[in-house]
Amino acid sequence: MEAAEGVSAATPTEEMNGAGNLMDFLDEPFPDVSTYEDFHTIDWLREKSRDTDRHRKITSKSKESLWELIKSLLDAWSGWVVMLLIGLLSGTLAGVIDLAVDWMTDLKEGVCLSAFWYSHEQCCWTSNETTFDDRDKCPQWQKWAELMTGHAEGAGAYVLNYFLYILWALLFSFLAVSLVRVFAPYACGSGIPEIKTILSGFIIRGYLGKWTLLIKTVTLVLAVSSGLSLGKEGPLVHVACCCGNLFCSLFSKYSKNEGKRREVLSAAAAAGVSVAFGAPIGGVLFSLEEVSYYFPLKTLWRSFFAALVAAFTLRSINPFGNSRLVLFYVEYHTPWYMAELVPFILLGVFGGLWGTLFIRANIAWCRRRKTTQLGKYPVLEVIAVTGITALLAYPNPYTRRSTSELISELFNDCGALESSQLCDYVNNPNMSRPVDDIPDRPAGPGVYNALWQLTLALIFKIVITIFTFGMKIPSGLFIPSMAVGAIAGRIVGIAVEQMAYHHHDWIIFKNWCRPGADCVTPGLYAMVGAAACLGGVTRMTVSLVVIMFELTGGLEYIVPLMAAAVTSKWVADAFGKEGIYESHILLNGYPYLDVRDEFTHRTLATDVMRPRRNDPPLAVLTQDSTTVEDVETLIKDTDYNGFPVVMSRESERLIGFVQRRDLTLAIKNARQKQDGVVSSSVVYFTEDAPQLPASNPQPLKLRRILNLSPFTVTDHTPMETVVDIFRKLGLRQCLVTRSGRLLGIITKKDVLRHMAQMMNQDPESIMFN
Amino acid sequence: MEAAEGVSAATPTEEMNGAGNLMDFLDEPFPDVSTYEDFHTIDWLREKSRDTDRHRKITSKSKESLWELIKSLLDAWSGWVVMLLIGLLSGTLAGVIDLAVDWMTDLKEGVCLSAFWYSHEQCCWTSNETTFDDRDKCPQWQKWAELMTGHAEGAGAYVLNYFLYILWALLFSFLAVSLVRVFAPYACGSGIPEIKTILSGFIIRGYLGKWTLLIKTVTLVLAVSSGLSLGKEGPLVHVACCCGNLFCSLFSKYSKNEGKRREVLSAAAAAGVSVAFGAPIGGVLFSLEEVSYYFPLKTLWRSFFAALVAAFTLRSINPFGNSRLVLFYVEYHTPWYMAELVPFILLGVFGGLWGTLFIRANIAWCRRRKTTQLGKYPVLEVIAVTGITALLAYPNPYTRRSTSELISELFNDCGALESSQLCDYVNNPNMSRPVDDIPDRPAGPGVYNALWQLTLALIFKIVITIFTFGMKIPSGLFIPSMAVGAIAGRIVGIAVEQMAYHHHDWIIFKNWCRPGADCVTPGLYAMVGAAACLGGVTRMTVSLVVIMFELTGGLEYIVPLMAAAVTSKWVADAFGKEGIYESHILLNGYPYLDVRDEFTHRTLATDVMRPRRNDPPLAVLTQDSTTVEDVETLIKDTDYNGFPVVMSRESERLIGFVQRRDLTLAIKNARQKQDGVVSSSVVYFTEDAPQLPASNPQPLKLRRILNLSPFTVTDHTPMETVVDIFRKLGLRQCLVTRSGRLLGIITKKDVLRHMAQMMNQDPESIMFN
Repeated sequence: MEAAEGVSAATPTEEMNGAGNLMDFLDEPFPDVSTYEDFHTIDWLREKSRDTDRHRKITSKSKESLWELIKSLLDAWSGWVVMLLIGLLSGTLAGVIDLAVDWMTDLKEGVCLSAFWYSHEQCCWTSNETTFDDRDKCPQWQKWAELMTGHAEGAGAYVLNYFLYILWALLFSFLAVSLVRVFAPYACGSGIPEIKTILSGFIIRGYLGKWTLLIKTVTLVLAVSSGLSLGKEGPLVHVACCCGNLFCSLFSKYSKNEGKRREVLSAAAAAGVSVAFGAPIGGVLFSLEEVSYYFPLKTLWRSFFAALVAAFTLRSINPFGNSRLVLFYVEYHTPWYMAELVPFILLGVFGGLWGTLFIRANIAWCRRRKTTQLGKYPVLEVIAVTGITALLAYPNPYTRRSTSELISELFNDCGALESSQLCDYVNNPNMSRPVDDIPDRPAGPGVYNALWQLTLALIFKIVITIFTFGMKIPSGLFIPSMAVGAIAGRIVGIAVEQMAYHHHDWIIFKNWCRPGADCVTPGLYAMVGAAACLGGVTRMTVSLVVIMFELTGGLEYIVPLMAAAVTSKWVADAFGKEGIYESHILLNGYPYLDVRDEFTHRTLATDVMRPRRNDPPLAVLTQDSTTVEDVETLIKDTDYNGFPVVMSRESERLIGFVQRRDLTLAIKNARQKQDGVVSSSVVYFTEDAPQLPASNPQPLKLRRILNLSPFTVTDHTPMETVVDIFRKLGLRQCLVTRSGRLLGIITKKDVLRHMAQMMNQDPESIMFN
Repeated sequence: MEAAEGVSAATPTEEMNGAGNLMDFLDEPFPDVSTYEDFHTIDWLREKSRDTDRHRKITSKSKESLWELIKSLLDAWSGWVVMLLIGLLSGTLAGVIDLAVDWMTDLKEGVCLSAFWYSHEQCCWTSNETTFDDRDKCPQWQKWAELMTGHAEGAGAYVLNYFLYILWALLFSFLAVSLVRVFAPYACGSGIPEIKTILSGFIIRGYLGKWTLLIKTVTLVLAVSSGLSLGKEGPLVHVACCCGNLFCSLFSKYSKNEGKRREVLSAAAAAGVSVAFGAPIGGVLFSLEEVSYYFPLKTLWRSFFAALVAAFTLRSINPFGNSRLVLFYVEYHTPWYMAELVPFILLGVFGGLWGTLFIRANIAWCRRRKTTQLGKYPVLEVIAVTGITALLAYPNPYTRRSTSELISELFNDCGALESSQLCDYVNNPNMSRPVDDIPDRPAGPGVYNALWQLTLALIFKIVITIFTFGMKIPSGLFIPSMAVGAIAGRIVGIAVEQMAYHHHDWIIFKNWCRPGADCVTPGLYAMVGAAACLGGVTRMTVSLVVIMFELTGGLEYIVPLMAAAVTSKWVADAFGKEGIYESHILLNGYPYLDVRDEFTHRTLATDVMRPRRNDPPLAVLTQDSTTVEDVETLIKDTDYNGFPVVMSRESERLIGFVQRRDLTLAIKNARQKQDGVVSSSVVYFTEDAPQLPASNPQPLKLRRILNLSPFTVTDHTPMETVVDIFRKLGLRQCLVTRSGRLLGIITKKDVLRHMAQMMNQDPESIMFN
C-alpha cells in the first residue's frame, strides 16, 4: 500500500496539480526505475515541473531543521560538484589517452631500450644529444629492425620495419574492434550524432554507461594508435558525456530527472571538446552551437566551469610536455594582408567542396554497409581498412606519422632552426636577420619533394577517411578533416609564397611584398585550410573559429579563419543543409528535431494529426464510464504512450491526458492491494466518484494520475507553429481540439514524419516510439 | 476597397490560415505603419508566422521570373548585408568617438601648439624626444597655464590649470546634458536596460531612432571627456543598436517585422561590445548571455560576423595607435601559482560586495531622483556632480587622467623601462637579468606614495560612481567598475608581492617563491580585481571572462579570472539576484520577463487569469450574434488588446481570438466602403454567414481577421509551465479553458504582476499595456 499512502499524504494544494503528485505516486514504489522506456522520447515540460516540485519540497523542508538546511545547500551545490568531478575525470582520461597514444603510436616503429613504456620523444629527452636532428636518433630508441637484426639501414631493415608497422597496426585495430564487439557495441563511431539525439530528449539506455566509458577509452587508444585515418576528438566528447552520466548517478537530482541529466551532459560535451583541443571556450560554444538542444544560461556557466576544470586538469598532467594547453601552438611573425583573403576564400571553397564530397560519399558507403552483406563482417572490414591504410601510409613520411604530428608540422612557420623537409629553402648567405623574421626565399629541392608527397598524402587521406568513418571502432573526424585542409592549405601557401617571391612586380604583390620581406606564412594557410575543411564537414562556424584560435593561440587571425569558415559553410550548404552529424542522424533514423531546419510549409495541425480520415477513431477514455476491463483491453490492443480522457464520447470535451505507464501501474496496484476492484469496476477520473450501492463493484479513482493540463492546439494552428512549440517546449505529444472538442493527437513522431514527407525524405525511416 | 480586394484574392489554402491572411489584409492599406503601438508588447509567434508567410511568398514567386529570383536572392542575403553595414558604421563611430575623447580629455589640461586637433600623445609623436618621460613633456604640447602666463611650474600655474580643468569639465557636461534634454531624452544612461527590454519584445518608439544615434554619439564624447566617472562601453552598445535599427529600415524584411528586427538588434549589441572592448567573441557572448532574449543559432553566426566587421573596421581606424584590437594589451612573463587563488578569490568576494553595495546605493539614489524634487533639475545635478568630480579628481594623479588610462597603467607589469610611480622599486644593482624577467624587489617610496593615492582614488571612485550612473547623460559603468576593481586588485597585488619578498620562508611562499625570482605580478591582480568588480555589478560570467582575456590578450589567465568572476557572482547573488541592469529595469517598471528568474511557486493558471472571482465577466464576442454596435461599444468601454470569440454565451466554447486593432480597422473600413453595413448589422465570425432577407441589414463577415489558433492552457496548468510558455514562445496573451469552455485570459502583464506579487514586489509598478 505504499503507493496509496503516498497519495493520501498529499495536501489539498498538491491535489490541484496533477503532474506534481503523479511523481510522488510513482517515485515511491519504484525508486530506481526511470519513468521512460528505452528508445522513447522524454517530455521536457514534465521533467521540468518534476524538478520544480522536488526543489520546492527541499526548500520548504530546509526550514525545519539544520540537517535539512545542510541537505538543501548540498542539493544546491551538487550541480557544481558534478561539474568539478566531470572536469577532473575527463581531463585525467584525456591525459592518459594522450600519453598512451603517444607510446603506442611509436611502438609501431620501435622501442625505448632504457624503459619500454617511454614514447620516442620521452625516450630521447634523457639523451644528451641536443639538436633536433640528433635527438630524433638518440641511441636509446631503436627501430624494430635494428633491435632484431642489428642493421638500422638497408632494404632488409626497411622491409622488416614496414612489415612490423603493419603487424602492430593490425593487432591494435583487431583488439579495438573485438573489444567493441564483445563488450560495448555502443562504443563505436564518434558518438556525436547519438549524443545530439540523446540531448534532444531521446533515451538510449547504456549509450553513456560505465562499460561504454571503459571500452571506449581503451579502444580509442588502440584505434588511434593503429594509424587509421581517424581522430580522438569526437570520441572524447562521448567519453566526457559518459563521465557526466556516471556522476549524475551520485545525485538523485540528476539521476532521476532526464531533463536535468541532459543539462549535465551538455556541460560534459563542452568539457570533452575542451580537453580534445585544449579549448575551453571553444568547447562551450561547440556544445551550444553543435550538440545541445536545451541550453539555458545556467548550463552555459556550468559548462564553462567544467570545461575549465577539464582543461586545467589536462594541463597539470601535461601530456604534450610543454605546459601549454593548446594542441598545436604556433606563433607567426608576420601579419596577414588584405590580398591574401583571395586564397583564404579559395581554401574556404575547397573546404566546402570537400565537406560535401565527404558527407555524400561517407553516407553512401555507410548506407551500403547497413543494407548489404558488408555490415555483417565488421571485424574483417576494420582489418582490411587498417591493412590498406598501413600499407599505403608507411612509404610516405607525411602519412606514416600520427595525423596530429602532421598537422602540427604543417601549421608551423619555418624558423631558422627548422630541419624539416618543408623548410628546405635556398638561403641567401648575404642575409643576416633575427631568427624569427626570415624573408621569403626560393624553395629548395626538399620543398618540391615535400609538395609531391603532400599531394599524394592529400589524395590518400581524402579517400581513406571516407571508408574509415563509421566503422565499428571509435573514430572522430575532426583530425582527419583538419589534416586534409592543412595539407591543401600548406600547398596553396607555398604556391603563393613562391609566386610572391618570383613576381614581386605583379600588381597584387607590389603593395605588400617587397623583395627581402617576409610576407607569406604558409603555416597560416594550413591553419585556414584546416578550419575550412572542418567547417565544411561539421558546419560549425563560431565554435570552429574559437577552437582554431584557442588551438593555435592566434587571436590575430580571426578574420582569415572566419572568412574561410563562412565561405566553406556557404559552399557546403548550397549542396545540402546537413552536416555530417545530422546526416548520420538521418541515416540512423534517430528522432531528432533539428533546431536549425526552418519549417516553411503551409500545412495545418489538422493535416498531421491522427486519426487520419479513414483511420479508426482516436483511442480515448471517458471520465466516468470506462471499466477496468475496457482500460486493460485498450492497453493490450494499442501501443500508444497515453490516452486522452474526455467527458463523454458524445461531447468529446477534453478533460486530461493519462500516461499508459501510469495507467498500467495504477491498475496493477489497485488489483493487488485494493479490495473490491475487479474487471467490471468503473474507472473514475472525476473529482468525486459517486457513492455506489455496496453490491456494485468498488470504483477505481484515478484522478491523481490524470494530467489535467495537457497541451492543446486548435486544428487550424499552422504546422510551423506546432513545430516551433514542439521544439521550444520539448513536447512529447500535443492534443488537437476545435472549439473544445477533441479531434486528434500529434506526437513528436508525427511531426518528424510530416517534416520528412515535406522534404521528400523517407518518413518510415524514423525509429521512434 | 483595397482591403476587400486583398481578401478576395486569397486562395483556398490561404483561407485556412487565419494568421497568415490577417497580414495580407493589414499590410495592404497601411504599408508603412507597424502593427504595434508604443509601449506595447509584440507577439513573437505572430511575427514569426508573418515572416514565414513573407518568405513563402518570395520563394514561390522566385520561380516565376529571373527578376524575382534575383529579388529572392537579395532577400536571402539582406541579413548579411545589414550585418556588414552595422559592423562598418559602428566600428567607424567607435573609432571617431575614441579619437574625439582622446583629444577632448587632453584639452582639459592643455593644447597642442603644432595642431590644436592633436591629443597630447599624437602631439608628441612627431616630437624628437624618444624616452617615455621626455615624450610626455614635448615642447609642442603646452598646459594652459604655460600658454597663458608662460610659467609651467609654481603654485599660480597649478591653480590656473586646476581652474581651467574644472571649467572645461563643466562646459563639456553642460553641453552634454543640454543636448540630451533638448534633442533626444532617450540618449541618456547606458541604454542596456532599455535594450534588454526592447529585445524581450517591448516597443519603445524612438529609443533607437536617428536622433538618439546622433545625439548619443556626440554627448557620449562630451560626457566621457568631462572626466565624470563613467565609461563609453554601455552607450556604445546603444549606439550600435541604433545603427542596427537604422539599417533595418532599408529592408522591409526587417523594418516590417518586429521579431526579425530584434534578431538584427541582438547582433548589433554584439557589434557594440566588440568595438567597445575590441572583443568580438566577448561581444557575441555578451549579447547571448546578458542582452538578448531570443537568440537562435542563425543570430549567433550573424552576430559574430557583425562583431568581427566592427572590430576590423575599428582596427583599420586604429585609434589607439598600436594596431592592436585590444584596449588594454598586457603581457605578463610569469605564470600564476595555485596559492595565488586565495587572494584572487578574496578579490572575487570584494567584487561581489562592491556589486551589492553599488546596486543598492545606486538604485536607492535613482529612486530618490525619481520621487523627489531632485529629478526636476537634471542639468543642475549634472553640473554639480561634474564640479565635485573635477574638484576632487584633479589633485590626485590617478583620478585626474582618464579612467581607461588609469586601468591600463594598473594592469601593466613593471618592466625595466617603466617610469611610473607604481614601478618605483628598489633595484638591486648586483642583479642583471633580461628586461622582461624582473625579480621581486622591495617597494620604493614611490610605490608607498602610489598606494596612498590609490586608496584615496578607490574611495572617491566608489562614492562618485554611485551618484553618476543614472544621470541624464550617456553613462556606462563597465569602465568605472573595472577601475574600482583594478585599484583594489593592484593594492592587493603589491601587498602580496611585498609579503612574498620579505617572507620567503613562510610555508605558503616557500614552494613557489624563491628569493630573486619573479613570482607575483601585481598587474594580474588588477586584472582579476577588475573582472571581479565588473562581475559583481553586471553578473556576467562567461562573457566577462572572455571579454577580459580578449581585452588583455591573456589566454593563460582564464582560471584566475574565472575563479574571481564566479566568486563575485556567488557573493553578490547571495544578497540579491538582480544585476544592475535588471535592477534598473525593475526600477523603471519595464515589462521584462527575465529568462533567469525561476518561478517555483505552486500557483495555477486559474489563480492568475482574469476575470477574478468578483470581477465582471470576461469581455467576449460571439461568433454570430453580436452587432456592429455591440462591438463598437465594447471597443469603447474597454482597453483590452483583443477579444476571445466564443460559439455562444451559453456554451462558452472558444472559437478564436480577434485583435482590437484589426477589429477597429475592419469595422471602420466596412462602414466606409461596404454598402449596407450599419450599427445593427450582425458580425459573423463563422465560415458562412446565413443568407438574410434583403430587409435585414447586411451582415459583416470578419472570419479572416479571426485568429483561429489562439494559445490556450487549462485552468489546472501550473503557473511555472505558463511562465515557461510565455518566455519560450514570446506570447502576448493566452486563453484559459476547462474542458473546452473559456474561463479567462492571462496576459503578459498578468504574469509579470503575479511574479512580482509572489516575490513581494510592488506589482503596480509595471508599466505596460
